[in-house]
Amino acid sequence: EVLMEERRSRIDNYPDPILDEEVGATLWQNQPYRIPVIGWMQEIEKLNRADARAFYDRYYAPNNAVLVVAGDVTADAVKAMAEKTYGRIPRGPDLPPRIRPVEPEQNTRRTVTLADARVGVPSFSSRWVVPSYRTARPGEAEALDLLAEILGGGVRSRLYQELVVKQAIASGAGAVYQGRMLDDTFLAVYATPRGKASLTDVEAAVDAEIARIAREGVAEAELEAAKNRLIRSVIFARDRQGSMANIYGSTLTTGGTVRDVQEWPERVRKVAATEVKAAASRYLVLAHAVSGYLLPQQQTEN
Amino acid sequence: EVLMEERRSRIDNYPDPILDEEVGATLWQNQPYRIPVIGWMQEIEKLNRADARAFYDRYYAPNNAVLVVAGDVTADAVKAMAEKTYGRIPRGPDLPPRIRPVEPEQNTRRTVTLADARVGVPSFSSRWVVPSYRTARPGEAEALDLLAEILGGGVRSRLYQELVVKQAIASGAGAVYQGRMLDDTFLAVYATPRGKASLTDVEAAVDAEIARIAREGVAEAELEAAKNRLIRSVIFARDRQGSMANIYGSTLTTGGTVRDVQEWPERVRKVAATEVKAAASRYLVLAHAVSGYLLPQQQTEN
Repeated sequence: EVLMEERRSRIDNYPDPILDEEVGATLWQNQPYRIPVIGWMQEIEKLNRADARAFYDRYYAPNNAVLVVAGDVTADAVKAMAEKTYGRIPRGPDLPPRIRPVEPEQNTRRTVTLADARVGVPSFSSRWVVPSYRTARPGEAEALDLLAEILGGGVRSRLYQELVVKQAIASGAGAVYQGRMLDDTFLAVYATPRGKASLTDVEAAVDAEIARIAREGVAEAELEAAKNRLIRSVIFARDRQGSMANIYGSTLTTGGTVRDVQEWPERVRKVAATEVKAAASRYLVLAHAVSGYLLPQQQTEN
Repeated sequence: EVLMEERRSRIDNYPDPILDEEVGATLWQNQPYRIPVIGWMQEIEKLNRADARAFYDRYYAPNNAVLVVAGDVTADAVKAMAEKTYGRIPRGPDLPPRIRPVEPEQNTRRTVTLADARVGVPSFSSRWVVPSYRTARPGEAEALDLLAEILGGGVRSRLYQELVVKQAIASGAGAVYQGRMLDDTFLAVYATPRGKASLTDVEAAVDAEIARIAREGVAEAELEAAKNRLIRSVIFARDRQGSMANIYGSTLTTGGTVRDVQEWPERVRKVAATEVKAAASRYLVLAHAVSGYLLPQQQTEN
């Protein structure tokens, strides 16, 4: 009942997360990332206490955990404390080998549209399946991080400058790359129209920026500035202990190492402009994008 | 290698089955019908002789088989022969319980578009998740069978008469309901434009027919004619021994009984016009349809 209420209050009562779930279930044709973390309602309904207990016993054991401690501590002191506390929890049964289905080739352009009376302002996003830090060839995930930064990382990005500042057709626009995943992940672009601009106008402007970066690549100065912003943002994030713990935890739980975290800034520094262009032209192919459209009920666009 | 070649020669070399696969992977958000029967190429590549053998040993055993014999035989003679031949094959290990994930609610309108240089004439189809004979309430699957027959079962159907004969905008149009499935199944409508008609024109005409049947229902005479056609087609199919075996086999392997086959004509007779209308208005909701568009490369429609 608690889970069902959580699902209702976080997802089913709002159009945005409903659309997001179905965009995910559309983007991933085979990979289990298609399944929402909280689960589908029709499956939550069937779970009982024994299911919850079995899940807990199987996965919430020391041999399936990463402990991250961030703060003013020494490794030796933490290790001694951890052994005295966590060390007393017995190892769980060996986990069965994980079956990790991978994505087939993406061959089609797909769209997901939700029209809902609760939507005030329409919005859209497009996603592509791209490699993660674990599945990418060396340097490719760093290039994707820089591509997302240049295209849509904050107010200095191309999408923001072009759509929000210059053309003034969007109230917001950006890009996101979720690099820390065990399997292939996604890169997303998004925008929200402003004033008299339609969703179609805004989408066309986003598509034009994507086509331009894939065709013309990026300038050296722009790349340098993006590297500085990206590296600085992670250094600033490390100032907060929660964020620092998160960076190490997400890296270690997705197949990375402490060295990957430490060397990341210099790996980003090494990315060449040609690699960013190559990532854009290889992955951001419009004929293989999955787009989600959130529309007010009466609108019939797309 | 044989499997990979089969996949290439049946699917990957042609745009229609590629689109069909990705429409299926989009329609089914959770149910494993999303996975093509032959498998995804990236997974076939990883299979070896031991995998094939393990699959064979697990599933190709008498305790997981239905034997259908159609022809000029008596039950006693067949049984005696079956015992002497198949009866000597030992029972396999018990099959583990099958996990059958079911679909979440369909909340969005989704499209899948494939533009390919090999496509000469564009086409489109729309699908909806609907109950099968096994998951439907009594009479509902029969109503869906009649709905598909009235909408798009051959040259007397509404779609054919309206789009092909009257408006002359389509070279073909129809509807399909795959009722014999263990889990929820789909109802599909499809059309191919003709002459100067665009895919958009044809889709709009199909949508208008769907909206009309959901709003106004069907006339008694039209329903009666559809019942006659549907029942007659199954009686004619039984004249071919292969088809007869197929009807029994597909019914028995999807949770049905011999009695279900025998009583099917009278259950179809009992369906009221209001039930056909209810099935159309409940399931054929355009805001929850998944549509596939096959386009020539240069076209950018949809």
